[in-house]
Amino acid sequence: MILDELVHPIIQAPMAGGPSTVALAVAVSDAGGMGFLATGYGRVETMRAQIRELRAATERPFGVNVFVPGSARYDEVAVERYLRQLAPEERRYGSELGLPRDDDDDWAGFLSVLEQERPPVASFTFGCPSDEEIARLRAAGISAWVTVTDPAEAQLAQERGADAVIVQGLEAGGHRGGFRDEGDGEELTLLSLLRLTHSACDLPLIAAGGIADGASLAAVLVAGAVAAQIGTAFMLADEAATHPAHRERLRHAAPTAFTRAFSGRQARGIVNRFQSEHSALAPRAYPQIHYATSPLRASARDRGDADGFNLWAGQTHSLAPELPARDVVLMLATDARAALSRTTERFQR
Amino acid sequence: MILDELVHPIIQAPMAGGPSTVALAVAVSDAGGMGFLATGYGRVETMRAQIRELRAATERPFGVNVFVPGSARYDEVAVERYLRQLAPEERRYGSELGLPRDDDDDWAGFLSVLEQERPPVASFTFGCPSDEEIARLRAAGISAWVTVTDPAEAQLAQERGADAVIVQGLEAGGHRGGFRDEGDGEELTLLSLLRLTHSACDLPLIAAGGIADGASLAAVLVAGAVAAQIGTAFMLADEAATHPAHRERLRHAAPTAFTRAFSGRQARGIVNRFQSEHSALAPRAYPQIHYATSPLRASARDRGDADGFNLWAGQTHSLAPELPARDVVLMLATDARAALSRTTERFQR
Repeated sequence: MILDELVHPIIQAPMAGGPSTVALAVAVSDAGGMGFLATGYGRVETMRAQIRELRAATERPFGVNVFVPGSARYDEVAVERYLRQLAPEERRYGSELGLPRDDDDDWAGFLSVLEQERPPVASFTFGCPSDEEIARLRAAGISAWVTVTDPAEAQLAQERGADAVIVQGLEAGGHRGGFRDEGDGEELTLLSLLRLTHSACDLPLIAAGGIADGASLAAVLVAGAVAAQIGTAFMLADEAATHPAHRERLRHAAPTAFTRAFSGRQARGIVNRFQSEHSALAPRAYPQIHYATSPLRASARDRGDADGFNLWAGQTHSLAPELPARDVVLMLATDARAALSRTTERFQR
Repeated sequence: MILDELVHPIIQAPMAGGPSTVALAVAVSDAGGMGFLATGYGRVETMRAQIRELRAATERPFGVNVFVPGSARYDEVAVERYLRQLAPEERRYGSELGLPRDDDDDWAGFLSVLEQERPPVASFTFGCPSDEEIARLRAAGISAWVTVTDPAEAQLAQERGADAVIVQGLEAGGHRGGFRDEGDGEELTLLSLLRLTHSACDLPLIAAGGIADGASLAAVLVAGAVAAQIGTAFMLADEAATHPAHRERLRHAAPTAFTRAFSGRQARGIVNRFQSEHSALAPRAYPQIHYATSPLRASARDRGDADGFNLWAGQTHSLAPELPARDVVLMLATDARAALSRTTERFQR
């Protein structure tokens, strides 16, 4: 299993829309963890180029994340009402709303590039590939990992032949990665999800959600994970392309919450002006809202206005270290071992 | 410190309104954990009698939990509207709504009984006693523990002289135990809360929330807790007075959610008919709604109708063991040690 090749059970979370870079993935892989490319919003040829760039820069294992296209159904009236509410934001940022278009991500194209380029791992978010698709990837020597948010999704991924599941607790920053986006189910915390999935599914579990330090890494391993997929602890890494205004908000204690305001899909971000003013009316309509707000967010980023774009963050963002990614990996591993030893000693008196 | 006297870092959560019994507390204390009395809805003299009964039955440490009275402000119009919505429930259960009265819990009386009876530990829910009150308890040789749901509450408890804080993650069953009940703050998961509080407060942390097995006990210890306060794993213990219809629902996977439908205060329960029909309109008005729905709930319990009363449960309720409480304690401790050893071995290859 590819996970056995890692020196440290640390997988860098793919952080689409900003923080993820090839340099970050290289640094994490070279440090003995596993770097990850986030091609969520990328184009097929960008993904191919990044895989080649990453492969040329490290001999260690790495992964590539792809968004699985979902249902196109959404409430057009709700979307129109929401876009009308956003009109003052156009004036504020001197930028027009984008078209609330459907996704044109080329799913078949992504799968072909994966088969051709053969990254060691491909992970999937927002859905589970079919059993045929997973079989194709595995035939190409690629480990297929599926992101899940409840035990039933993990069971489905197992039935379809996935190699591992990434179990994402509700403390995670960014988009909820599960198959559905109804918002009517129970959101499980990482600890609850690990224990419930452990008893329902035989696949290796990779824990994701708000892991900012070594003690929480050790805790999820003890709770049954074989490794952790970590975003929060890498948000302030030197190699992350996290926007400076975003970095500034991440450093301090500040509440996070779920919102559809930026993308039309539930995601956890630090509560800022845009998020608190617009979350109530924001409809479930991904990727339509993502494309509609895209120019506003770009404009707010250009101005360094942290109140106008998405500040994705896990609940523990204020604990994120500011270090080169290599040092983050080593610190996480060292502190995790220390937390394990300390607990073992105290427990065995 | 009293926690050092425990053979196992396992504290039975006080489960007011049903499951908690003196027999359960005795069994947990005798097994090397710490049993707890839940006097949340009790009367002062009941508490005194239970403390005496418990003390006569075990020589081991135990604790007593008390609700701290809060603000009496609530929206009377919203309460009246909610009670009108509940009228069909009166016909269904052949039982009239109770008066939405204010609490008559005798806070001063509880404190006096604690000072007189001197249980080893007194814990507090729904608020933090004043520094004078905590000083009185400590002068009587009682350890004062305060339940918190965010790092700021933990800091306040520390400033007022508490001996430890019980950090309650959002996965916990039953009432949210923090100081405020506004429902507008960020609800933190147990792992996030442990790490954030660990960096903000020097008191010993006792982890609470959805701990149903030894692996999650070990995980919270690794994440910085000195012990865990465990309700979920004891809900099906032989000595718990959990209603048979409640037990039946606990055994199977079923979503839980927060609701004010039963008590007017946020609490996590398995979603049943009453909870799904009434949560949307239920106002923030504790204990008024608690007293108003009390006869309906009693009547539903008498009929064994699990759709008519509160099914408090942590997110992992389906993992709860059905054993004598002593065996639950021993299993949790054994499995926690095993999870620690397994992780240490794998991590140190």
